[in-house]
Amino acid sequence: MALRIGVLGTGAIGTDHATMLATTIGGASVAAVFDVDIARAGELAHRIGARRHEAATGLINDADVDAVVIASPGTAHAEQVLACIAAGKPVLCEKPLASTVDDAARVVAAEAALGRRLVQVGFMRRFDPGYVAVKDTIAAGRIGTPMIVHCVHRNRSVPAGFTNAMAMTDTMVHEIDIVRWLLDDEIVSVRVVRGRRGPHAVEGHDDPQLVLMTTASGVLAEVEVILLWPPGYDVRCEVVGSDGLATLEHPRVVSTTMTGNRSEVVPDGWKTRFGDTYRIELQAWVAATLAGTVVGASAWDGYAATVVAHAAAAAQGAADEVGVRLIARPPLYG
Amino acid sequence: MALRIGVLGTGAIGTDHATMLATTIGGASVAAVFDVDIARAGELAHRIGARRHEAATGLINDADVDAVVIASPGTAHAEQVLACIAAGKPVLCEKPLASTVDDAARVVAAEAALGRRLVQVGFMRRFDPGYVAVKDTIAAGRIGTPMIVHCVHRNRSVPAGFTNAMAMTDTMVHEIDIVRWLLDDEIVSVRVVRGRRGPHAVEGHDDPQLVLMTTASGVLAEVEVILLWPPGYDVRCEVVGSDGLATLEHPRVVSTTMTGNRSEVVPDGWKTRFGDTYRIELQAWVAATLAGTVVGASAWDGYAATVVAHAAAAAQGAADEVGVRLIARPPLYG
Amino acid sequence: MALRIGVLGTGAIGTDHATMLATTIGGASVAAVFDVDIARAGELAHRIGARRHEAATGLINDADVDAVVIASPGTAHAEQVLACIAAGKPVLCEKPLASTVDDAARVVAAEAALGRRLVQVGFMRRFDPGYVAVKDTIAAGRIGTPMIVHCVHRNRSVPAGFTNAMAMTDTMVHEIDIVRWLLDDEIVSVRVVRGRRGPHAVEGHDDPQLVLMTTASGVLAEVEVILLWPPGYDVRCEVVGSDGLATLEHPRVVSTTMTGNRSEVVPDGWKTRFGDTYRIELQAWVAATLAGTVVGASAWDGYAATVVAHAAAAAQGAADEVGVRLIARPPLYG
Amino acid sequence: MALRIGVLGTGAIGTDHATMLATTIGGASVAAVFDVDIARAGELAHRIGARRHEAATGLINDADVDAVVIASPGTAHAEQVLACIAAGKPVLCEKPLASTVDDAARVVAAEAALGRRLVQVGFMRRFDPGYVAVKDTIAAGRIGTPMIVHCVHRNRSVPAGFTNAMAMTDTMVHEIDIVRWLLDDEIVSVRVVRGRRGPHAVEGHDDPQLVLMTTASGVLAEVEVILLWPPGYDVRCEVVGSDGLATLEHPRVVSTTMTGNRSEVVPDGWKTRFGDTYRIELQAWVAATLAGTVVGASAWDGYAATVVAHAAAAAQGAADEVGVRLIARPPLYG
Repeated sequence: MALRIGVLGTGAIGTDHATMLATTIGGASVAAVFDVDIARAGELAHRIGARRHEAATGLINDADVDAVVIASPGTAHAEQVLACIAAGKPVLCEKPLASTVDDAARVVAAEAALGRRLVQVGFMRRFDPGYVAVKDTIAAGRIGTPMIVHCVHRNRSVPAGFTNAMAMTDTMVHEIDIVRWLLDDEIVSVRVVRGRRGPHAVEGHDDPQLVLMTTASGVLAEVEVILLWPPGYDVRCEVVGSDGLATLEHPRVVSTTMTGNRSEVVPDGWKTRFGDTYRIELQAWVAATLAGTVVGASAWDGYAATVVAHAAAAAQGAADEVGVRLIARPPLYG
Repeated sequence: MALRIGVLGTGAIGTDHATMLATTIGGASVAAVFDVDIARAGELAHRIGARRHEAATGLINDADVDAVVIASPGTAHAEQVLACIAAGKPVLCEKPLASTVDDAARVVAAEAALGRRLVQVGFMRRFDPGYVAVKDTIAAGRIGTPMIVHCVHRNRSVPAGFTNAMAMTDTMVHEIDIVRWLLDDEIVSVRVVRGRRGPHAVEGHDDPQLVLMTTASGVLAEVEVILLWPPGYDVRCEVVGSDGLATLEHPRVVSTTMTGNRSEVVPDGWKTRFGDTYRIELQAWVAATLAGTVVGASAWDGYAATVVAHAAAAAQGAADEVGVRLIARPPLYG
Repeated sequence: MALRIGVLGTGAIGTDHATMLATTIGGASVAAVFDVDIARAGELAHRIGARRHEAATGLINDADVDAVVIASPGTAHAEQVLACIAAGKPVLCEKPLASTVDDAARVVAAEAALGRRLVQVGFMRRFDPGYVAVKDTIAAGRIGTPMIVHCVHRNRSVPAGFTNAMAMTDTMVHEIDIVRWLLDDEIVSVRVVRGRRGPHAVEGHDDPQLVLMTTASGVLAEVEVILLWPPGYDVRCEVVGSDGLATLEHPRVVSTTMTGNRSEVVPDGWKTRFGDTYRIELQAWVAATLAGTVVGASAWDGYAATVVAHAAAAAQGAADEVGVRLIARPPLYG
Repeated sequence: MALRIGVLGTGAIGTDHATMLATTIGGASVAAVFDVDIARAGELAHRIGARRHEAATGLINDADVDAVVIASPGTAHAEQVLACIAAGKPVLCEKPLASTVDDAARVVAAEAALGRRLVQVGFMRRFDPGYVAVKDTIAAGRIGTPMIVHCVHRNRSVPAGFTNAMAMTDTMVHEIDIVRWLLDDEIVSVRVVRGRRGPHAVEGHDDPQLVLMTTASGVLAEVEVILLWPPGYDVRCEVVGSDGLATLEHPRVVSTTMTGNRSEVVPDGWKTRFGDTYRIELQAWVAATLAGTVVGASAWDGYAATVVAHAAAAAQGAADEVGVRLIARPPLYG
């Protein structure tokens, strides 16, 4: 009776997801996995008692696979999501939904053509208890009219091969989604400003950067992005309303006092900070899928985030702000 | 391949546990439930797709039940645990392990006679990330020698029929276990002192109370207990070492600023504060049981907590401190 | 032996300063006061035992006045400071140093021509224990290379007649000075961006605004400015370095827990937040003056802040950033 | 017109007080100093422009001395205060008021016989903004009925020659006064319990200790006392009421984030923590004296604190609690 899930991609995140689905998510089982790295896929399959597929399409169309999790490289996402839609199977696709704006639009068009929602994009922060509390506070009208959003996104490091544009398409994209979601508003323009380059900045990276985004209703959202910051992984969000603030706090549970200081730990990476958020996201996806519904970020959200992220990447080299152009929103997305 | 679990008792906690096991715990399924309230048990069984048993012993001895969760009234615990031991089935028993010291000792004796561990007592705080971090901080030697422990346990209310002794055996027993666990030390004496009675105190309750416990190594643990405190459910713990402090912090994730105040929410009850801790506990129990091991509080821990709690209840009416006498610890418990 | 001080201007701030100098500042006495409002000046003079002068110049040149505090309207500042320089008397001038860039430059030129420093500009935040600790943290190299500065400056209200430009020249000017001082760096360009207008914004005010300033070394400083924000007076500062953060914290000394919330008070205005900072500033000015030295913001600092503030006011209506042009810094200012 | 003050005792605290009075307290001047260490007194007198007296009585009766600050050794306090009363001069006496209960009672009797108040005892915490806010919160009825008070008083070290009893009469006496003052209530019994001795405890000291005091209205106040605690000087206070808490917070103004930790400084001693509190106390004493009134702790408060402190010292060696017996409170003290 458990949802039989197929996992595409068995890299770090795919393996995490598959392991969680197999061990700590209720109502779920991992039926099959696929990766171009056959050995890696095989090892995972063996460990969690799943079958290994030879091809993504085989897994997607496997009659014993009820739903699909996509954790393959970003360039493969759009085709795999399209195949899931074609197969009529619910799919949780890690961000980004697609590596180009056109591909993201194709996914939206395909799902809209199908006429029912199957796709959830893995913007896990929407399931983080802190962000949920911020959204609830806004939605309840407790801070009045949202006027400004302050975000910080500092990474201890980024992988080799990380390009300057990826600071927008891979890192800042989380804030793009969360700002849209918190405010229930579209982003219409984006500007990128550089901070002073520090000694740890990697060749080819603008680091740090400050991104300014304006929404359709005029809210100004600013995001500080640092790619290489030794002190820790630091993510923050504060929404300034006409009558109050909603502030995401660091989720500390313990503090220590020693040798002249009272201190709390700063997370060493996204896994420490958002590990449990991924669990909540997977559990919510499984429960919703079993109930025949879809929660979380939609294909439209994935598309819009992609458009804004690419505009932000274009804005990295521009003196002025860059406008955001979206296709018409299909009625399927409300 | 999932662990097939039988749940005894379908009151508030039993229903919570059964629902969680059926929906948000990996590797688990609920095979059967039992409650003296047949209608209530039947309704739950129907909702989660389990069978309803006519008797606790039937459930325990059901060949399709691999492991048992006991959430029945405290007076039934000891007999049910003993039946699980007799049946050779792993069991997670909500605290208390037994309603009398003698019954708790019988459970220890039975498990010791069996020669292998089957029993986990539901002291869920041992799985709370905050308490785990406090323990890790102590165990790593970061605060030096533990000298004093400060605890606070304030409830918004207690159920009708709650006796004065239950402030020790039902409420403060959590601190008894957590102090023993944090320090890896036995409690040898206990004293209870009254605070000033406030306007909300219920007839027959000493409220508030301050409990002072001394451990074998001389650590002084003090616990403020309030049974009826309208502002919120407030649980705290700070361990004072010779070289530092480990402080359990309130697990806030958001704050708000409005009309002159910056504030964070105080939980409205144990379910808000420890709801996710129960999930972690259940998941850990399921994973350990599937792996053939036992984690968490043992029958010995349940026995020791019972002895101390009853000594504390005796100390409520006494001018002096009351000593704690434990039976010899069977080698099974290390 | 106490410093005999003359106070120009007996409005709210002048009265505060005179009263503090007469009662809670060591080494000081108020010898004379002047205000165009004769009754108001007379009343204060009577209350603190000072003489009332008929004209500002009379007070400045009074042989029984050793030093002058200027708290008159901003348009009078430059002439009064120039008169103090001409008289060779130490002067503490409330910000702004002058109401025009040219006037500020004249003050700098006059003091430079004199060849010794007499002027302190009343940027009191330089004496706030929090800002001092932030500066010390940076100066000690503990956060590495400063890269970005985040500031917030929210007011509960502004006086009638407050213009849109004054959001820069009167409010944000505090951040202009503090950023220059914290970083020991000049600001070279400024840009102003609007946030979403809220329901409390006053006609004619861009409210809220986000100001982006770049320093000579490339540090990006951003300041959120709100003129009318009912929840409270909220001033913040965080300096992001390559190896750490220095964060100005809200100076709370007490918290309360009631009816479901743990909270601390947000100041209701600058007097609550910076009242003691003014005392420290006045005490430091008196002590330095008695010792024949000058501390705090110099005439040059007052000039530079004026230039940047006027550039920021120009940037309010501009699409692009506005450059800042300073005259050559006289050697007197190091 | 400034208050002409004589300072008795020019050790660390006397020198601090005299220097503050001479430099950073409004309305005050130091006219004379005395110390048995002639060289030390002479050096201070020279530095701050005061005369040096050959004897305490000479200073007290000096016609050019309007008021006296006593910072001599505790054993000299009572006689010096009595001489001030005999001379009709206002006096601020550092705690303790007297080194014996009988001497303290003699001071009370002498002032009562005089029929007007001259004596303030230097319990400076009554002027600390944090404690003041705690008291205001209680007095406003915001936390309902006070039921329990939790205090912590941890020192980094104590001077050579510090006896075990002094943990009560010199250290814990601050909490005795503050509890009496916060609750406007007398302490009627005291009990002392030992914590586990740590590796830094000095020979002859019970360290740490937990002191339990009960007030006339039944409030239970507990104080953790540590004499030698390397991490820092840590003073706390929380008052638990039937409807809320008032919590003294650590007065941080800045935090830093580096290498995996977000931290704030723990004070290294009472001077860091309460330095400004002493300034506020001295300023309030000067202002009140100039106005012909008395604020702060009275001779009665000094007497009551002495009685409780000596009872606490007696309780260090006792198994049971020790009762507190006060003389009848003269009407002079309200």
